[in-house]
Amino acid sequence: MVPDIKKPYGKQTERRLSDLQEYFSGKKVVNEMLGQDDPIIYKVFEYPVPNEGEHLIYATTILLPGKVKDEFYFTKGHFHNKPGGAEIIIGIEGSGSVLLQNREGEFRYEEVKINSVVYSPPGWAHRAVNTSKKDFVFLSICRADVGHDYEIIISNGFAKRVVEREKKVCLIN
Amino acid sequence: MVPDIKKPYGKQTERRLSDLQEYFSGKKVVNEMLGQDDPIIYKVFEYPVPNEGEHLIYATTILLPGKVKDEFYFTKGHFHNKPGGAEIIIGIEGSGSVLLQNREGEFRYEEVKINSVVYSPPGWAHRAVNTSKKDFVFLSICRADVGHDYEIIISNGFAKRVVEREKKVCLIN
Repeated sequence: MVPDIKKPYGKQTERRLSDLQEYFSGKKVVNEMLGQDDPIIYKVFEYPVPNEGEHLIYATTILLPGKVKDEFYFTKGHFHNKPGGAEIIIGIEGSGSVLLQNREGEFRYEEVKINSVVYSPPGWAHRAVNTSKKDFVFLSICRADVGHDYEIIISNGFAKRVVEREKKVCLIN
Repeated sequence: MVPDIKKPYGKQTERRLSDLQEYFSGKKVVNEMLGQDDPIIYKVFEYPVPNEGEHLIYATTILLPGKVKDEFYFTKGHFHNKPGGAEIIIGIEGSGSVLLQNREGEFRYEEVKINSVVYSPPGWAHRAVNTSKKDFVFLSICRADVGHDYEIIISNGFAKRVVEREKKVCLIN
């Protein structure tokens, strides 16, 4: 039997608002929201493989719809620890977008639908954003030895934020 | 703009019966069929990346429905040249199966539907088979530097062949 990528498998992780409070720009709104509730922002299922470069990791992310103030829910986003290490992101259900940036300051914004494939080249960071009103489900694949570097994202953020303005999806600095 | 994995992108390859005549067991039937026509067995679209280990290749295969005598259409199947090199196979449309085997003689048969994921571990060969009456479309992902070794498959074949017997899908030696 092989996994169905829409159903739970392998190692399962939940990321709640409290796990992402350093990432959203509306700190005051985050604190107000956390006073009421600590909503799930996304869930990840990851197929277990040895942490070696000949293996590939695949993981399903279910990114829920929602906003913090006007900023759409997103995944933390990361560079890989190894300078290289491409990542492939495949739209499975719903729609959203992927932000891509490298350490030289280049930035790309890609819209993702079912069966879209985004190629994040070696050295590029990537973050998914749910700009829709339904779950955005995608599969990510990378080498099992590349690791995740969240520190630069926490301190510097992404080049752009994705917000709703007058019912439209906007990129702002 | 990002590719839609069901539509042509990147490098496109067609594999016809004449390209696979060494792989099917019914050599006489292959020759008879080739006297009439040289049907497409599968088409591949491959996203172009540098041939380096930090990159990942992704490719869509459209494996057509059909049989040579009683043997269902299949892809050539391959080991990777590098001893390692996992491959991930994701069902996109239709259904079929994947044969997996390693050099120690272990064998696995996995049925694939839309959103099934087959993990071919480092050192394992893999072949897709279309046991249905419609196109079987799947996405394959592996490191860009692993290469393909078809020679062992041409000389030794796979451990099992997938054939139709009394309208049922059967595995035979």
